[in-house]
Amino acid sequence: MKEKTMSRLCKHLAIKHSQKNSKGSADFCVKNIDHAAFGRREIEIAEQEMPGVIALRRRAEADKPLSGAKIIGCTHITAQTAVLIETLAALGASVRWAACNIYSTQNEVAAALAEAGYSIFAWKGESEEDFWWCIDKCINCEGWQPNMILDDGGDATHLMLKRYPAMFNMIKGIVEESVTGVHRLYQLSKGGKLTVPAMNVNDSVTKTKFDNLYSCRESVLDALKRTTDVMFGGKQILICGYGEVGKGCSAALKGLGCSVMVTEIDPICALQACMDGFRVVRLEEAIKSIDILITCSGNKNVVTRSHMDRLKTGCIVCNMGHSNTEIDVGSLRTPDLTWEQVRSQVHHIIWPDGKRIILLAEGRLVNLSCSSVPSFVVSITAATQALALIELYNAPPGRYKQDVYLLPKKMDEYVASLHLPNFDAHLTELSDEQAKYLGLNKTGPFKPNYYRY
Amino acid sequence: MKEKTMSRLCKHLAIKHSQKNSKGSADFCVKNIDHAAFGRREIEIAEQEMPGVIALRRRAEADKPLSGAKIIGCTHITAQTAVLIETLAALGASVRWAACNIYSTQNEVAAALAEAGYSIFAWKGESEEDFWWCIDKCINCEGWQPNMILDDGGDATHLMLKRYPAMFNMIKGIVEESVTGVHRLYQLSKGGKLTVPAMNVNDSVTKTKFDNLYSCRESVLDALKRTTDVMFGGKQILICGYGEVGKGCSAALKGLGCSVMVTEIDPICALQACMDGFRVVRLEEAIKSIDILITCSGNKNVVTRSHMDRLKTGCIVCNMGHSNTEIDVGSLRTPDLTWEQVRSQVHHIIWPDGKRIILLAEGRLVNLSCSSVPSFVVSITAATQALALIELYNAPPGRYKQDVYLLPKKMDEYVASLHLPNFDAHLTELSDEQAKYLGLNKTGPFKPNYYRY
Amino acid sequence: MKEKTMSRLCKHLAIKHSQKNSKGSADFCVKNIDHAAFGRREIEIAEQEMPGVIALRRRAEADKPLSGAKIIGCTHITAQTAVLIETLAALGASVRWAACNIYSTQNEVAAALAEAGYSIFAWKGESEEDFWWCIDKCINCEGWQPNMILDDGGDATHLMLKRYPAMFNMIKGIVEESVTGVHRLYQLSKGGKLTVPAMNVNDSVTKTKFDNLYSCRESVLDALKRTTDVMFGGKQILICGYGEVGKGCSAALKGLGCSVMVTEIDPICALQACMDGFRVVRLEEAIKSIDILITCSGNKNVVTRSHMDRLKTGCIVCNMGHSNTEIDVGSLRTPDLTWEQVRSQVHHIIWPDGKRIILLAEGRLVNLSCSSVPSFVVSITAATQALALIELYNAPPGRYKQDVYLLPKKMDEYVASLHLPNFDAHLTELSDEQAKYLGLNKTGPFKPNYYRY
Amino acid sequence: MKEKTMSRLCKHLAIKHSQKNSKGSADFCVKNIDHAAFGRREIEIAEQEMPGVIALRRRAEADKPLSGAKIIGCTHITAQTAVLIETLAALGASVRWAACNIYSTQNEVAAALAEAGYSIFAWKGESEEDFWWCIDKCINCEGWQPNMILDDGGDATHLMLKRYPAMFNMIKGIVEESVTGVHRLYQLSKGGKLTVPAMNVNDSVTKTKFDNLYSCRESVLDALKRTTDVMFGGKQILICGYGEVGKGCSAALKGLGCSVMVTEIDPICALQACMDGFRVVRLEEAIKSIDILITCSGNKNVVTRSHMDRLKTGCIVCNMGHSNTEIDVGSLRTPDLTWEQVRSQVHHIIWPDGKRIILLAEGRLVNLSCSSVPSFVVSITAATQALALIELYNAPPGRYKQDVYLLPKKMDEYVASLHLPNFDAHLTELSDEQAKYLGLNKTGPFKPNYYRY
Repeated sequence: MKEKTMSRLCKHLAIKHSQKNSKGSADFCVKNIDHAAFGRREIEIAEQEMPGVIALRRRAEADKPLSGAKIIGCTHITAQTAVLIETLAALGASVRWAACNIYSTQNEVAAALAEAGYSIFAWKGESEEDFWWCIDKCINCEGWQPNMILDDGGDATHLMLKRYPAMFNMIKGIVEESVTGVHRLYQLSKGGKLTVPAMNVNDSVTKTKFDNLYSCRESVLDALKRTTDVMFGGKQILICGYGEVGKGCSAALKGLGCSVMVTEIDPICALQACMDGFRVVRLEEAIKSIDILITCSGNKNVVTRSHMDRLKTGCIVCNMGHSNTEIDVGSLRTPDLTWEQVRSQVHHIIWPDGKRIILLAEGRLVNLSCSSVPSFVVSITAATQALALIELYNAPPGRYKQDVYLLPKKMDEYVASLHLPNFDAHLTELSDEQAKYLGLNKTGPFKPNYYRY
Repeated sequence: MKEKTMSRLCKHLAIKHSQKNSKGSADFCVKNIDHAAFGRREIEIAEQEMPGVIALRRRAEADKPLSGAKIIGCTHITAQTAVLIETLAALGASVRWAACNIYSTQNEVAAALAEAGYSIFAWKGESEEDFWWCIDKCINCEGWQPNMILDDGGDATHLMLKRYPAMFNMIKGIVEESVTGVHRLYQLSKGGKLTVPAMNVNDSVTKTKFDNLYSCRESVLDALKRTTDVMFGGKQILICGYGEVGKGCSAALKGLGCSVMVTEIDPICALQACMDGFRVVRLEEAIKSIDILITCSGNKNVVTRSHMDRLKTGCIVCNMGHSNTEIDVGSLRTPDLTWEQVRSQVHHIIWPDGKRIILLAEGRLVNLSCSSVPSFVVSITAATQALALIELYNAPPGRYKQDVYLLPKKMDEYVASLHLPNFDAHLTELSDEQAKYLGLNKTGPFKPNYYRY
Repeated sequence: MKEKTMSRLCKHLAIKHSQKNSKGSADFCVKNIDHAAFGRREIEIAEQEMPGVIALRRRAEADKPLSGAKIIGCTHITAQTAVLIETLAALGASVRWAACNIYSTQNEVAAALAEAGYSIFAWKGESEEDFWWCIDKCINCEGWQPNMILDDGGDATHLMLKRYPAMFNMIKGIVEESVTGVHRLYQLSKGGKLTVPAMNVNDSVTKTKFDNLYSCRESVLDALKRTTDVMFGGKQILICGYGEVGKGCSAALKGLGCSVMVTEIDPICALQACMDGFRVVRLEEAIKSIDILITCSGNKNVVTRSHMDRLKTGCIVCNMGHSNTEIDVGSLRTPDLTWEQVRSQVHHIIWPDGKRIILLAEGRLVNLSCSSVPSFVVSITAATQALALIELYNAPPGRYKQDVYLLPKKMDEYVASLHLPNFDAHLTELSDEQAKYLGLNKTGPFKPNYYRY
Repeated sequence: MKEKTMSRLCKHLAIKHSQKNSKGSADFCVKNIDHAAFGRREIEIAEQEMPGVIALRRRAEADKPLSGAKIIGCTHITAQTAVLIETLAALGASVRWAACNIYSTQNEVAAALAEAGYSIFAWKGESEEDFWWCIDKCINCEGWQPNMILDDGGDATHLMLKRYPAMFNMIKGIVEESVTGVHRLYQLSKGGKLTVPAMNVNDSVTKTKFDNLYSCRESVLDALKRTTDVMFGGKQILICGYGEVGKGCSAALKGLGCSVMVTEIDPICALQACMDGFRVVRLEEAIKSIDILITCSGNKNVVTRSHMDRLKTGCIVCNMGHSNTEIDVGSLRTPDLTWEQVRSQVHHIIWPDGKRIILLAEGRLVNLSCSSVPSFVVSITAATQALALIELYNAPPGRYKQDVYLLPKKMDEYVASLHLPNFDAHLTELSDEQAKYLGLNKTGPFKPNYYRY
């Protein structure tokens, strides 16, 4: 990013730069500081729905386990993130924060955080240049040497590594949430370029189960209903992929009286589908009879034009997997097919003979595009991130090397335990005798690392 | 309704009265005939989702079993109703139609029907006076003596009975869909004032199952998600009433990982709840621990202020029953409680100590207010109505007296059979030997009248 | 039955006739009075599992509502029946009892009843002649004019009607439990020969649900496991008939990970199967792929030799319906097929090419032959019978004519309420205001007669 | 074991030693060679129910991947084991086999194997001395140097290690199935005494899911029904432990209309229970209200006398966990309590006030004691064992060190794939493009090692 670009940016942001919060600070850049009150109310509502993070805040507030931590955050900026940010601050950290996505910032929330004194650099609809400028503003702050990174996608990590390598080497730890970011960390590690310990919280047990199984079990229904008002009872449904997402979708739809079939490439998952009562077929076998087709394989081109040519009219096609590659949507953009948008996120694709299929969110993730992620799921993730930061920041020298780690199981268990009171669930404690018999510490961890849950 | 009122109405409708459809007819009254094209498209979409009615149209089109029938219709006017209306016409009937509710008319659909030549008198937001004027316009038409009524709530029936008693006595039959309308018919019958046969289609087997069990099983989830984005997993839920609606709600929520309890007044239904795995409690026992409270008892004041005083903060309260009496919402309108509207149909009611409960649709039917009824369910109802009209219109003299009847089981079975192809379901046929063994006709009816399904 | 026969019987029973109980009475005929103690223990265990009947005994003991009743009983004689008999006695009745089946008597229980002073005439393995002699001994007792009959199959009713018509005309009421017996009563009624009121308890709501839906949901699993040790997970299963039994079987097997299909002749039940998530097929479509075939249609020759010729090897075939006619077992007794008994109630039928199918209970009811009926289900039936006797015995003149009646709904509800404490279920009571709103009596009945549950 | 003992054994076995099979061989020791025909039939039936092993036999028969392998087997000797033994032989191996348990040998099957020429040393009811003699006879055979061990519990491994250390060092690999045996191997390894590679097949994915989740989901129902005929519907059940076994039990019982609660020590599993709809409580909270108490925690003294003192009368208590320590059965053997055996494996324990609880299998594993393991589950295990043997026997030098290994994921997937045809399940194959996109080999393994399924 060159000087020219930066100066152009500054011009673009001229008005915004004149903003100050009520205490006189101008160390932030948001859309409109005046919308802070509305954002604050959103944060308060989110607090009520994030019992785990609030519990963590209360339990650790006295200890201040993040005292001295200087954290660069680069994540979606929503009311839930605000709860996380204010929790990190309550635990002693100083933070600077940018968005990991140019569209996902809730402007009012960013304003409320800026008003509360946090250095937030983010607004909805950033240009690519704005995006990098914001991250840079977080990192490059006189008199403030960051020592932790909380990343979602790896952009803060990579910008710092590239542009401020000396600063990067002084980082105590990186916490990364996303599949993509984790992938990039493993590649850095393989290439010998990862000079600080990093924690992959994407694959922690609790987070994974909530992000995939529990969340999708509900959002598949919600997304389909909101977009199509379809009646589930009696529908024939094909689910491509029987991982956690596929398991959640299948169970939910079966529970509402659908007849569900599954495709799989992995014989173990296929056998699980059988034992759960689902027929395992190849897409070709079922394509002509199904009413709804849902991809959640993590694979590409699972559904091709050739498949869609054979679907029956009225079939709903959507994707619950990890990206927009599963359905070959591009193959539908040919002159012989007519696209008709019937609602937000809903297209009818019409064949020359009048057959129409209903494509949701143009093949992007239908649960994110057409449903919402419950705050409870976000609470799990946020608590996981906070604990990973605490662990890396406080770990005795030598515990973590220049490598990528999974969250220690005990921390994973702690995240779960923070959320149990929400269900009025009461854990049983081991007696000394029982702990000895099982060869366990009474406070956990309770399972070997290879345990599958 | 006096002359004065009528003249005021005419003035109010002056502009509308000048409307004509493209064939020059002005025998209708809708909001704006120019929106007919949009309404036509809605009707076409509805046709695709109402396979049973369309199948009926196709099967009976040649026979014209309603040839000569002159039907007064008074129901909600939606795209689905339009499919019914055009089906009745295809079967030979002549119709005139008004709305049974001042808010529920889809103006574009009404326009499309008017454009197609149907005499529709309805628009969204009618005044009370407009409402009766519209019905009157349907009935009182020179040179057109109605011989059938299709009613939803009984208003057309009662207006005609009161204002045009001679005309009423020439009616061959009334088909009534709603609980209220059926209740009014039974009262007429008891009072000896019902001079024509009437058919209660509200309690036909197929319609009832779809309206209550199957529809609510899905809409309870949809309504809660759309309004609150609540995560279902692990929630403690209390369902008041274990009839068809309660059974549907309980099964759906159990399927998504909720812990469901039930209240009941009827020991048989209570025992069913036990055998289905639900604890049967009194409201008082569970009130403090629940996350969601759903009424579907058909009763009044099931949830009182005293109960709501004891709910925990964040509890969602809503009604899936038959009216807005189940939750005593009036008791919440006291000065000490603050009402805050957070979304359409969602209020937070805040107690002086900060406790807030989340009230949906102000206690009205949350599935109707915050979800949508699938076209498939409407198709079942519409097919039932059409078959009831055919039966009453064609019945040999003496089959039906001046009384209220349930739909003959064979017709009920026929409605079901019309919808089976949609599920690619294949019925088995009895052999002659088997029919004889069972003492049945090979084409049904297959069950005694007291069979419970 | 001629004199000669009777005298032969007496000779046959010579030894037995010399039996006396410990109080010196010889007015009974059982296998061996010495086994009374063992039978008494069986009765005590049964009492613990029949909470409803015991509750009825306790509640009505003071009132003695059967005081003066003289009841002829003709049912299966088991420990559970003994609990009923002693309950009737506790309520004031005097009884004489015979078996309704030549094989089903538990001899030790009969001995215990005889020892306790009841006039029991029954043993396991009666000849046809013994059978009628026993019933006759119950009826024809000097100085004891029966006024009630509790029948299971109609044999006591018909013997009395034929042999003692004058006595029959003095009966106050008949309570009949079985499909067959009820059928015979309706025929008597049609023929104008039913001179006393009779109550069909077979079709009472509570009893029907437990006999069919709830009981079969469990016994289908139990019977299949005990006979074949089959693993359910992943099995393809075809259920013929989707009435209460079929619904119970399908739900249970689906719950354990089976892939279930259904055949139906009735479009309403077929539509229910669809909405519950089951494919509705014709037997021919599925026959080649299924692992287990279960009939519960109540029909005959649903599964023919031609079907079984096409089953795959290892397929299990069994019947949960109402008789042994559903599977055409006779068609398998041809020279080309080899029958091999591999366990009690389990035959392998082997085709010339080596294919073998596994036939359970030779096509008889597998749930009765290979599982057991839980005492709780029997408790429901027994309480229903007792209440029907109380109702008929105490009804004011004119309430019941010479016809067949269903159990009054209020009694049906009472049977249910007697069993609720077993589940710690707490009913909600209507307030006066609510009862008025609903138009109900606060103590029920709570539903119209046509309510479907 | 001293010479004296051996000579006594020989005397004891004198008669048996004179047995020869039809080909004249006497290199075996079974109860009665004459029962071989009956055993052969049992083996043939088992073959039909072990599709995976038979498929493996067919696929690998030509390759003879175990050609040259000399395997010592020490497992339960049942018809299913016979199928495994004959499969190993078909793959080229030479085997000698003893029992791993003094009671579990099916004598007829052992006879059939001996008749077929296998050197089997086992009979039901061996003394401790017999037991070790049999294993020794397998190992110590002139001219036959074993190179593989297939062990279940570790007894063959440890006998050889102790008595024939030189022979042990020439072993190419050990395959161990049991928890106990695996534990012993890890201890050997820790102590530096494991001089050969060993494979822990107990924790392979496919086997674990079938042994625990899928198998227990069915056997919990079966064991409870066979022993108590209890009706499940409406019962309140407490499951101690929500691991795979607990998950299976809970799901099955919920599916049949039970109200299930769970106890847990691990917050992650507790949270899973919440999300699956189960209340998580401490034993103390629920103890007074439950009808059935099932332990599957793997822990000791989970249910104590103090708990059982508070159970209500009629409560059923049983154990599905890994040993007989979970319920403190010893604490019930006090003079104030009366034990009454009412059936095989069923005791009533009676308190002085008449309260009785129903204890199954005296606290031992109720699924093994009172149910049966489906052949399909055994097929999974046997295929896993065979593949582990093939892998270890054929591995290139250096792949396996002197350590304990988990089965390679690809082998695990292969076991699953062998069993898919049984469900008519059709796997989807990756295209080259997709494999590249996912970074996978088209033939697997398809998941990282930490994948949780």
